[in-house]
Amino acid sequence: MDLKSKIRVIPDFPEKGISFKDITTLLKDKNALKETIDRFTELIQGRQVDLVVGPEARGFIFGTALAYNINAGFIPIRKPGKLPHKTLTQDYTLEYGNDSLEIHEDSILPGQKVLIIDDLLATGGTLLSTANLIEQLGGEVVGIFTLIELTDLKGRDKLTKYRVESLVSYPS
Amino acid sequence: MDLKSKIRVIPDFPEKGISFKDITTLLKDKNALKETIDRFTELIQGRQVDLVVGPEARGFIFGTALAYNINAGFIPIRKPGKLPHKTLTQDYTLEYGNDSLEIHEDSILPGQKVLIIDDLLATGGTLLSTANLIEQLGGEVVGIFTLIELTDLKGRDKLTKYRVESLVSYPS
Repeated sequence: MDLKSKIRVIPDFPEKGISFKDITTLLKDKNALKETIDRFTELIQGRQVDLVVGPEARGFIFGTALAYNINAGFIPIRKPGKLPHKTLTQDYTLEYGNDSLEIHEDSILPGQKVLIIDDLLATGGTLLSTANLIEQLGGEVVGIFTLIELTDLKGRDKLTKYRVESLVSYPS
Repeated sequence: MDLKSKIRVIPDFPEKGISFKDITTLLKDKNALKETIDRFTELIQGRQVDLVVGPEARGFIFGTALAYNINAGFIPIRKPGKLPHKTLTQDYTLEYGNDSLEIHEDSILPGQKVLIIDDLLATGGTLLSTANLIEQLGGEVVGIFTLIELTDLKGRDKLTKYRVESLVSYPS
């Protein structure tokens, strides 16, 4: 299946000059959703994964489905103030501004194998911060998977330490 | 499995007097995550579901995994300004204040059978608004499933039109 054909491109959102990749058209298509999760699953087959980590909010969308499918746990990474227990915080730069991410300190045990998943690899700021948080807790990042990669933004160059996989790229 | 034992209760979060139900301890436990999705799946077995709808952000956590598992599509309901295409908006009251929800106008076709999923049934405001949005688009709500129900808040009384199921309740 051509997953790219299921993604809707919206010009000038959230601001002028940005061409937004709308994944809701893919998600509502049950076959495209299934294919996306199955392709992530194939990419990690044969590797041990204890935990899947997904950054709020679109990282939750694919993260839990993949965690369920590969029999791993799921760890949400959230915006400040949302997680109720003790957290580690990391500031980061993203495509449209600055923000912070938090993870529960007791979410990952040293040595656990962790797969990061999100919808989009843009500048790589969110994903690098996510990897840093995992490593501060002693986790081992076994991969960073995204549905979409915006190759012009060269986010992959920030993540050379890691195995980075995307299913669809713009421009291709 | 006793799913309740996997949920961490945090006193006075996000504000004094509120006893927050922290599901991250359940999510990180792969067996508890699997059991949660499998129990939701059993509850809907034999009924046709075209789409699973989940409100931002914790509704995404169980929603996509369930959608994948029952071979349905997934529709995210989001806070204002996040969805890039034409939306319907609904204002609502929730446990800790007021907010609005949006759904893409083209997300549901008339007659489609829709299952709503979220982590928590509290006052029922979020879930009732979600059901209203679905019905405005012509969808048929075939159920409202949550992991947790706070029975004292009587959210179920707002949702008597619907089949409401929760896996864990406080107090029980």
